[in-house]
Amino acid sequence: MNISALQQARASYQPKLPHALKGALKVVEGAPTESAADQAEIKKLFPNTYGLPSIHFEPIEGTWPSATVNCGVILSGGQAPGGHNVIAGLFDGLKKLNPQNRLYGFLLGPGGLVDHKYIEITRDMVDEYRNTGGFDIIGSGRTKLETKEQFDKGLEILKKLDIKALVIIGGDDSNTNACVLAEYYQSINAGVQVIGCPKTIDGDLKNSEIETSFGFDTATKVYSEVIGNIERDCNSAKKYWHFIKLMGRSASHVTLECALQTQPNVTLIGEEVEAKNQTLDDIVTYVASVVAERASRGLNYGTVLVPEGLIEFIPAVKRLIANLNDMLAVKKDEFEMIQRSKRLTYIAINLKPENAALFLSLPDEVASQLALDRDPHGNVQVSLIETEQLIADMVAVKLAEWKKEGKYDGKFAIQHHFFGYEGRCAAPSNFDADYCYSLGSTASMLIAAGKTGYMASVKNTTAPADEWIAGGIPITMMLNLEKRSGKMKPVIKKALVELNGAPFKEFEKHRKEWEKETAFIYPGPIQYFGPSEICDRSTKTLQLEHQKKK
Amino acid sequence: MNISALQQARASYQPKLPHALKGALKVVEGAPTESAADQAEIKKLFPNTYGLPSIHFEPIEGTWPSATVNCGVILSGGQAPGGHNVIAGLFDGLKKLNPQNRLYGFLLGPGGLVDHKYIEITRDMVDEYRNTGGFDIIGSGRTKLETKEQFDKGLEILKKLDIKALVIIGGDDSNTNACVLAEYYQSINAGVQVIGCPKTIDGDLKNSEIETSFGFDTATKVYSEVIGNIERDCNSAKKYWHFIKLMGRSASHVTLECALQTQPNVTLIGEEVEAKNQTLDDIVTYVASVVAERASRGLNYGTVLVPEGLIEFIPAVKRLIANLNDMLAVKKDEFEMIQRSKRLTYIAINLKPENAALFLSLPDEVASQLALDRDPHGNVQVSLIETEQLIADMVAVKLAEWKKEGKYDGKFAIQHHFFGYEGRCAAPSNFDADYCYSLGSTASMLIAAGKTGYMASVKNTTAPADEWIAGGIPITMMLNLEKRSGKMKPVIKKALVELNGAPFKEFEKHRKEWEKETAFIYPGPIQYFGPSEICDRSTKTLQLEHQKKK
Repeated sequence: MNISALQQARASYQPKLPHALKGALKVVEGAPTESAADQAEIKKLFPNTYGLPSIHFEPIEGTWPSATVNCGVILSGGQAPGGHNVIAGLFDGLKKLNPQNRLYGFLLGPGGLVDHKYIEITRDMVDEYRNTGGFDIIGSGRTKLETKEQFDKGLEILKKLDIKALVIIGGDDSNTNACVLAEYYQSINAGVQVIGCPKTIDGDLKNSEIETSFGFDTATKVYSEVIGNIERDCNSAKKYWHFIKLMGRSASHVTLECALQTQPNVTLIGEEVEAKNQTLDDIVTYVASVVAERASRGLNYGTVLVPEGLIEFIPAVKRLIANLNDMLAVKKDEFEMIQRSKRLTYIAINLKPENAALFLSLPDEVASQLALDRDPHGNVQVSLIETEQLIADMVAVKLAEWKKEGKYDGKFAIQHHFFGYEGRCAAPSNFDADYCYSLGSTASMLIAAGKTGYMASVKNTTAPADEWIAGGIPITMMLNLEKRSGKMKPVIKKALVELNGAPFKEFEKHRKEWEKETAFIYPGPIQYFGPSEICDRSTKTLQLEHQKKK
Repeated sequence: MNISALQQARASYQPKLPHALKGALKVVEGAPTESAADQAEIKKLFPNTYGLPSIHFEPIEGTWPSATVNCGVILSGGQAPGGHNVIAGLFDGLKKLNPQNRLYGFLLGPGGLVDHKYIEITRDMVDEYRNTGGFDIIGSGRTKLETKEQFDKGLEILKKLDIKALVIIGGDDSNTNACVLAEYYQSINAGVQVIGCPKTIDGDLKNSEIETSFGFDTATKVYSEVIGNIERDCNSAKKYWHFIKLMGRSASHVTLECALQTQPNVTLIGEEVEAKNQTLDDIVTYVASVVAERASRGLNYGTVLVPEGLIEFIPAVKRLIANLNDMLAVKKDEFEMIQRSKRLTYIAINLKPENAALFLSLPDEVASQLALDRDPHGNVQVSLIETEQLIADMVAVKLAEWKKEGKYDGKFAIQHHFFGYEGRCAAPSNFDADYCYSLGSTASMLIAAGKTGYMASVKNTTAPADEWIAGGIPITMMLNLEKRSGKMKPVIKKALVELNGAPFKEFEKHRKEWEKETAFIYPGPIQYFGPSEICDRSTKTLQLEHQKKK
């Protein structure tokens, strides 16, 4: 056997589809749309794809027109559970439209289009990958499709293979590029439609029309499973504080969702830290005070969730990093001459006083990491910082001070964890399996409907799948202008955690109680075969956001 | 809701029992037993409990005698999935024997018996904890029951509560102590039976009569789930070598089982390293050669499993640590006077030359850890060493050398992980839920049968639960003499991975293929509601060991 028993059983799972995607359908157009901001500028940049209407599909009697159309598909950026099901939904949709339709997969991401690396995706291949995790069917990559040269090079192979439509499965950046590509192909009458699909475990690609990005559901369930297991261990052994860092790039959606599922004692949310202009010391003092309060009742254990992007949200740390980068850029040669053992001192005396003070307050390891481990451009590598350990270590220092002052009397033993790779390629939950298959199927119908510059959209996702609403929204609708490398560029607005949104409000409502009590919840592993309320439930984030709408 | 949907559904799961435990039963005695080794000495130490027969239960018509008997239960040592079900099985068994029977739980481990901390375990409590992970129902602890004073102190409270039997749920050490306690209470006619239950995720408490310790099944399934997810990520991103350390104390059973379930490129087995007298450099060279070979075919990614106890199995490292401990004990005062920055040098020149060479070859961080982070007794804290990172870092150094020599041309980017706490308190798999409930039920029947110094035993565990064989074995049968703190003591022989055992042989048969190919298997999460071949399967270790027997 070269696949697991579970994988064997899951291969035959038939993802649930929205009613409208099950048979023939018609396109229902909404009103023309506007971009998220900077309407005049965006309109000027996207004359051919701006202002298109949102659309959704409705079922009709009869059959659907079915010209032959070959299609290409690209997986872009980090893995997310369900990518294979988007491809399966797209494949099945295309074949249903016309058995002659072919689907080509470009290999290892957008680079495959530019370098003409591809394979034809066959039914046997699709069958092997249905309901599996990973992006290994064609691989993914991080090449950015941004230049006219890339677009033209891509068009050569699209023409050669008679590909009339390209589906790009990616996050906000990849979909921004899909939008630019759609506009360009439209402007030169290339005869190639471009459709995007919202992918990212980070959950930061969402808006009024895109309820969630795929993979968020599965990844947060995997993380919540292991967090819950650690919490149960924490509550059994009663001797450790577990500091757990979670993937999710800058946004704290993953951390917030896991907090709602597992109810840890402390959850740090980057967006809140920034909004409240908190310092690193504020954060450390807050965590230490929760630890001390529990210790005063004999509870020397607990669980703390830390979002991967936290450090970048702390305004003072942001200023320190900017100061460091600028200073070292100017004094590069001088700095190189300094003996390694004196470099931290050199840095400290060359920083602005307020930044130097923060720099000196950091544990040695972190200070070294900031000062000495720099990327090829000379910049600080923030992602290398073990934030969960940094916070834990600084809390230990704070508690030691409080102990001397007689304000704290407890034990503080630390365990730290980082979860990321454990969830990005997990086999999709039923939700993600269904949602992704629906997105792929929707993409095929957008192609058949002749649309370009659209993102596949499946809404009403807290209802049973049959009632989901499939359609598409013009990607231009999500754009605004943001500064990138010094220039204003049209990009999809990243969705950060909203402090007045329902998920954060729910967390805030219970925060005090979770700090004091041991209110842990143990979600357990993703289930595929049991009762629907266990196997098909969506994220708390989605449930809370929908409750609010109603 | 303060429990998860899955926990709610699992609360009503009725664990499967062996046929013999479902109704009335009779005790079938085997021949008298002998200890594992050192028979004469062990017999002398255990005059009252040595040489008893193994027993098993067989179903009979009619009813089972049912005197009232109050019972105490203790959870000892590290958490393992299923502990709550042992208590549930024991509780239900006692109540079935006689509804007047009471069960008391001693709190936070063996210390609860000595300090007279206990609660009565009621049906409501048991119902709340059925099929859940963790030891939080009464907590666990690591106090060792070893002295006559402790035994006598314990007897006071046992007498007070009219407890006639004590069930100790623990690993090899705890069961050794249970055996000593049984012998002592028997020798003074205390009227208290002592029964042990085999617990440990490490899998190192097993022998001809104990097929597996509980928790091993669930923990290895949780680790295999996340390892499989990482492997799928590895195989999708194609850019990292993932080094994964796994819990399991000295023995490598957990690592071997996970390797059989997930087929990573490299698996290190401590017992093999020791048997082959490998050096740290041998291990590093082996891993580097697998990396280099894959790189030569463009495969710059892979997965490596490292058992927690590896470092202690490397004979040269063992010698270095012994040398370090001895040398620093002698030169303690002198060492304390040395400036921190010169301490590594001081150590290097004071070690035996062959140990100094190894010490100097270690990455700075590890050398510092060995030299400077010492426990209160001045000993090296081996468990703090991040072995997976040590090996990875040294492989990087080796590959850099080979690159200079033109023997390697690839990329080597590392991610490292440690899994332990994620699995110890997971909700038990069906196997562990059934096995633990059966062990608890068996313990109640051993009590009813008047046995003491026995360990509950449930065999034939790769067959359906109905066909499992329940009984008990005298703990003295597992004993041999080993040196502990300089004195020969009777202890249960720890089961290490046998290099001629079926599980290791199976691994060895495929090792070369797994190194070269990307033969990953993705087991996915534990399932509770699906087909029996997914939900009820036992470990590969158990399956292979049973196949061999047949």
